[in-house]
Amino acid sequence: MSVDAPTFSPLYRQIKDLMIQALEAGEWRPGQLIPSEQELAARFSVSQGTVRKAIDELAAENLLVRKQGKGTYVASHHDPRALFRFLRLVPMDGDLAHPESVPLECWRAKAGLEAARMLGIRQGDLIIIVRRILRFSGDPVVVDEIYLPGEIFQGLTLEMLQDWRGSLYSLFETRFGLRMIRAQERLRAVAADRGTAEILKVKEGKPLLSVERVTYTYGDKPVEWRRGLYLTDDHFYLNELN
Amino acid sequence: MSVDAPTFSPLYRQIKDLMIQALEAGEWRPGQLIPSEQELAARFSVSQGTVRKAIDELAAENLLVRKQGKGTYVASHHDPRALFRFLRLVPMDGDLAHPESVPLECWRAKAGLEAARMLGIRQGDLIIIVRRILRFSGDPVVVDEIYLPGEIFQGLTLEMLQDWRGSLYSLFETRFGLRMIRAQERLRAVAADRGTAEILKVKEGKPLLSVERVTYTYGDKPVEWRRGLYLTDDHFYLNELN
Repeated sequence: MSVDAPTFSPLYRQIKDLMIQALEAGEWRPGQLIPSEQELAARFSVSQGTVRKAIDELAAENLLVRKQGKGTYVASHHDPRALFRFLRLVPMDGDLAHPESVPLECWRAKAGLEAARMLGIRQGDLIIIVRRILRFSGDPVVVDEIYLPGEIFQGLTLEMLQDWRGSLYSLFETRFGLRMIRAQERLRAVAADRGTAEILKVKEGKPLLSVERVTYTYGDKPVEWRRGLYLTDDHFYLNELN
Repeated sequence: MSVDAPTFSPLYRQIKDLMIQALEAGEWRPGQLIPSEQELAARFSVSQGTVRKAIDELAAENLLVRKQGKGTYVASHHDPRALFRFLRLVPMDGDLAHPESVPLECWRAKAGLEAARMLGIRQGDLIIIVRRILRFSGDPVVVDEIYLPGEIFQGLTLEMLQDWRGSLYSLFETRFGLRMIRAQERLRAVAADRGTAEILKVKEGKPLLSVERVTYTYGDKPVEWRRGLYLTDDHFYLNELN
């Protein structure tokens, strides 16, 4: 929170920042091949080694993806491997089939105090709220309530959500040009209220895993706040601590 | 699951592996300064740049710690910053005081099927089981049941646990030479049984966060299996998704 004195930033970091700007500006779009190291070195007037180091870091942070013998691509939510990055729920029986998303509702509202704080917008600003279920092998396991800033998600409708074949983030990427870069999740155990219990076909009071997430795009800008309630009888939330 | 053809390993990776061997053999101990990049380059007959790249990766994986102007040290569980790596529980009021560990019991048993599988030992092998509470600001918030392989933790006693001022992993490091490198946690929501409810001063059936952890030392060897039950009324489990 304190203002630090300006510190020395190595050259490759400066190149990395310029590359993030190009990503942010949409010069290079999700799933697209970016220019070669040689071309980037010429563009930024630095050595190929410096470009490589910048790409190393961007790949480690999942902003870029290196493909052997093909070049470097902008990461995309359409990549099936991208799903696990943001959904840590794993079936105990090891079945890795993707869950099916069933949108229930999509409505417009004014941001309350908490939503405004979480999304970095003003109280009373337009937000769009989505409720949906995730089904694994046909069984409802997750109920999500998702709060989105109206400014970005203006045109989002229930029909659009229902028509989409793919993950929510791949829809956001395709229709709203939005890349999710990182998220922070807060986990707690809570008792199911009546409505959630009915949807998940369990008794009221059943212990559920509550997962509150704030998701950020480039520049640490929050663009989604959601609360998921997970039934963990046959699934668990997997976390690797390194 | 398929057997891959042997792949090319870059030189710095080979140096990294040799350095891990030195760490594993105890040549460089937790908290100690390792030789300079120049000395390591001479020892392995490679360039300083190659050594630096190996150290970069070992630092990114939290095996080594670079200290500005001082050199590179072996990571240690005595470092106060090390605690959050393995305990993701955060008070909602933002109080970052370290929790107090209260050991309750420490006994010897024969490994059952599940403990043997989790710890990579044989059924019937000696294990040591520890029960303890974590208190935040005096209030019990976590009950841990910890299963340890007898082969490594032979001399562990309740008295040793009670006399120790510091984290459990710093005790394991000091008394048993054990470094915890990474862990995998599986989270679920469960209802408190009577005994746990009494310890945590809540009603039986109260939703609790169940955190099952397997912890690994060098060489991906499991050395601890534990189950924690977390009361999440005033705390949450924080996870960063990158």
